Amino acid sequence: MDFLDALKRPPLVLGVDPRPKLHGREALAHIRRYTLDLMEALAGKLAAVKFQLAFFEALGPKGMELLFELASGARVMGLPVIFDGKRGDVGSTAEAYARTYLEAFPGSALTVNPYLGLDALMPFVEAADRARGALFVLLKTSNPGSGFLQDLPVDGRPLWEYLLEALAALGKAREGSWSRVGGVVGGTYPGAVRRARALAPAFPLLVPGLGAQGGGFFREEGVLNAASRALYYPGGRPDLEAALKAAEAFV
Amino acid sequence: MDFLDALKRPPLVLGVDPRPKLHGREALAHIRRYTLDLMEALAGKLAAVKFQLAFFEALGPKGMELLFELASGARVMGLPVIFDGKRGDVGSTAEAYARTYLEAFPGSALTVNPYLGLDALMPFVEAADRARGALFVLLKTSNPGSGFLQDLPVDGRPLWEYLLEALAALGKAREGSWSRVGGVVGGTYPGAVRRARALAPAFPLLVPGLGAQGGGFFREEGVLNAASRALYYPGGRPDLEAALKAAEAFV
Repeated sequence: MDFLDALKRPPLVLGVDPRPKLHGREALAHIRRYTLDLMEALAGKLAAVKFQLAFFEALGPKGMELLFELASGARVMGLPVIFDGKRGDVGSTAEAYARTYLEAFPGSALTVNPYLGLDALMPFVEAADRARGALFVLLKTSNPGSGFLQDLPVDGRPLWEYLLEALAALGKAREGSWSRVGGVVGGTYPGAVRRARALAPAFPLLVPGLGAQGGGFFREEGVLNAASRALYYPGGRPDLEAALKAAEAFV
Repeated sequence: MDFLDALKRPPLVLGVDPRPKLHGREALAHIRRYTLDLMEALAGKLAAVKFQLAFFEALGPKGMELLFELASGARVMGLPVIFDGKRGDVGSTAEAYARTYLEAFPGSALTVNPYLGLDALMPFVEAADRARGALFVLLKTSNPGSGFLQDLPVDGRPLWEYLLEALAALGKAREGSWSRVGGVVGGTYPGAVRRARALAPAFPLLVPGLGAQGGGFFREEGVLNAASRALYYPGGRPDLEAALKAAEAFV
């Protein structure tokens, strides 16, 4: 498996953010069954499945077991996996994260946070190269206050663009192929999505916020549109039929 | 338990970054036993115990079980806990992280990443208030390349100082008491530690890098000096006697 193959698939990403309260008794077993069924039903319509680590950590050790089980399940179906952990740390700690998510699941992607600097990203970049995976570095996030640091002016452009320029060099983009270093840009900022696409044409872009957060669908090449609540809990609850319809309506 | 009581204790923090290769067969059972023994032996010399989440995640679901067991063990010994996860995300995802680490372990602290902005930090701030815990927001990290974003000039001061000023307002510091919002400043940048201490006198500061990363020991009020490898694996391996000596030498 090579994560870059995700870019040849339909540009929709299923975001899995499980909430046990919506799954009744035996919530974990129900989440397992529902997610496997949903991934299977939607597989042909998806670029990848994105697991939001926070919601699995919130389920305790059994939640992490479930996460790894569902990630393996996706891979068995041929679906690339994105671990949405927004991790970031120095040296050997970054290596530990890279081992856990990128190397243990070759061909997968991880979202990472750039605040610590480019040297702190290198263990992730190297692991993604070794394991034919990818990184999505937070650039411009979907929340209303994301501009506080991300839009600070740096030599006449917002900080996130300055960061993107530096990453584009780091990503060692080869002509005619996608970089293993990509970015996250919130769909709530359509101008930023288009700007990122123009500034770093070889960068895969993960664009969350489709549906629930009010983001639109982007058809630019290399853009993966992620819908979580709107696709995983259409109408506010687990519903396989409604999810299928929602996926068709998006694409 | 109230995390702010950690500031009345000796200013040394034991960083727990377990590496299974150093623990032979039955590594997890050995890590459990060694860490409990070490915490017990050092308890009177410590402000808190800091668990590096990356190393527990790297151990798989059983690692998360071990993490929660050791965190409970520390609390039973009266030792405040810092979850070093450098988490950061938007809205309900930030809430999920806050529930898992701050609310499930009242009186504990979590390290968080500010790249997403102040609004994304609010669920953490509110959870820390409710659960009498604390946050340590990454300001200036210990790695050589931390300046890439953190030292960008913002109106004549480095970005991390601009961030600290905004956080100081957010932390609602009350006169004569410590704020529940604090910061992380790498001990490899002693000037930054002193500057942070001066700019935000009510902020607890977590200063990693003592020993192994070449950071020194800071005796300024409200500074918690964290040693990981140098205290958890003195001489490169688990060694209770050597750890006791190292703790005495530091303080």
